[in-house]
Amino acid sequence: MNSYYHKVQYYETDQMGVVHHSNYIRWFEESRVDMMQQWGFSYAHTERIGILIPVLGVSCEYKVSAKFEDVVEIIPQITKITPVKLLISYTVKNSKTGEIIALGESKHCFVNKDFRPVSLLKYSKELYDLFNDSIILGRKSDEI
Amino acid sequence: MNSYYHKVQYYETDQMGVVHHSNYIRWFEESRVDMMQQWGFSYAHTERIGILIPVLGVSCEYKVSAKFEDVVEIIPQITKITPVKLLISYTVKNSKTGEIIALGESKHCFVNKDFRPVSLLKYSKELYDLFNDSIILGRKSDEI
Amino acid sequence: MNSYYHKVQYYETDQMGVVHHSNYIRWFEESRVDMMQQWGFSYAHTERIGILIPVLGVSCEYKVSAKFEDVVEIIPQITKITPVKLLISYTVKNSKTGEIIALGESKHCFVNKDFRPVSLLKYSKELYDLFNDSIILGRKSDEI
Amino acid sequence: MNSYYHKVQYYETDQMGVVHHSNYIRWFEESRVDMMQQWGFSYAHTERIGILIPVLGVSCEYKVSAKFEDVVEIIPQITKITPVKLLISYTVKNSKTGEIIALGESKHCFVNKDFRPVSLLKYSKELYDLFNDSIILGRKSDEI
Repeated sequence: MNSYYHKVQYYETDQMGVVHHSNYIRWFEESRVDMMQQWGFSYAHTERIGILIPVLGVSCEYKVSAKFEDVVEIIPQITKITPVKLLISYTVKNSKTGEIIALGESKHCFVNKDFRPVSLLKYSKELYDLFNDSIILGRKSDEI
Repeated sequence: MNSYYHKVQYYETDQMGVVHHSNYIRWFEESRVDMMQQWGFSYAHTERIGILIPVLGVSCEYKVSAKFEDVVEIIPQITKITPVKLLISYTVKNSKTGEIIALGESKHCFVNKDFRPVSLLKYSKELYDLFNDSIILGRKSDEI
Repeated sequence: MNSYYHKVQYYETDQMGVVHHSNYIRWFEESRVDMMQQWGFSYAHTERIGILIPVLGVSCEYKVSAKFEDVVEIIPQITKITPVKLLISYTVKNSKTGEIIALGESKHCFVNKDFRPVSLLKYSKELYDLFNDSIILGRKSDEI
Repeated sequence: MNSYYHKVQYYETDQMGVVHHSNYIRWFEESRVDMMQQWGFSYAHTERIGILIPVLGVSCEYKVSAKFEDVVEIIPQITKITPVKLLISYTVKNSKTGEIIALGESKHCFVNKDFRPVSLLKYSKELYDLFNDSIILGRKSDEI
């Protein structure tokens, strides 16, 4: 897995002179979309085969402000997967200094186009396994 | 027609200390959506009956910067309607001083859910007439 | 205190056909800015006298999707104030049905223009008291 | 000059299933910021030495809708520079097909931190020359 990098844009800043806090929530999404694309099972494809993965909850803890023209590294990590639920945590770093600038989490479920909950395991074992393998890989990299 | 008012939000500012210029384009949309709602023919309803009104072009001229907590008045004016095309102009004022802070324009067409161009006149004479009457009313108010 | 209402805009929706989840974080901000304005001690004024109130953390739990042209009511409630920290919780309701569609929280500190932490009690006892009184009022309305 | 690429994000789509038109205005900004960074005279640096380059006007013509996970190429081209004014045009392409999906323009002036107009030629001949050279280079590449 390659890290995901985002260059902070001018329109993401606010009059405090730093990035508006709501944008980190969007960066989380950017990073999980990128992760799935690297798996070869993109979120666009996921929606095309009839599965939506809406957000049930999100949280972010801000440590250091990101600034215009900073490049931030966002590292998503699947922390839990069940047939009906998905948990992802996020580490946001300043790519230059390596300093952690924010930590976050998102909670998701799986629904069909009518927004009815579905079992991902039944709907796409392939995607379920990708999420599951990603947890195991994450644990292994923690052990090293 | 009641004027449309928008209170400038913190997240709309950038590190220049004023509203980011891209937000005015969104305010234009807010005002035309509000206008249709006042007509009793909302844009949500329009989409439900199968007509989409995408944007073909947009322009904005910025005169004075809007600031956080300013209340801006956005006045949309239909300037042209044909069965296949729609032109709207916008005047943005500081609601406190009455000063014009921006002028803009948007160009639209009418399409169905498959993004095929449709004649609004055939699809909904009611909405076509609302746009058309609005031009005539605008001209009359100019004459006074 | 009057409730804060926000009309869902088209640009707030995403291709899932509902409001993108990041916007709720922005609505929280809208509601706390409105609350301070109702107190007669606006956030714009707060910044002018040299106090910034950045966000240290934010969370949101999504219950029901908000849709285009829905009007949502956002009710902010101060839950804790100390000289250096502030906690606010948010209830988001569909204004038509009264149904709770989201719950959230934000955590803040007080800093000066150089982003150094300051004691709000020392810097502005007036604002500190407004936050504090709001907690007491909130508790009282819970008792009724 | 390397082209500037932007991957379309989910939060940039709206319920029409395509990118919301306001985002193109933000992509124009992304591309001109990137261009200056490639020159080694970044916009962040420009602001640090006391020059702001606000937007006086912007326009965009939409040809084809960009979609989620599309990669768009945005090519900014300086078209005019005077000591007090700057014009930039933009070509937005689908990076896969090469198809032009939008064309745009932005008009800027140069101001100091108090928003007073300044002569860029006097303030920074280096930056003025970079803008000017870029026009000449653009013309040459057109001739080929």
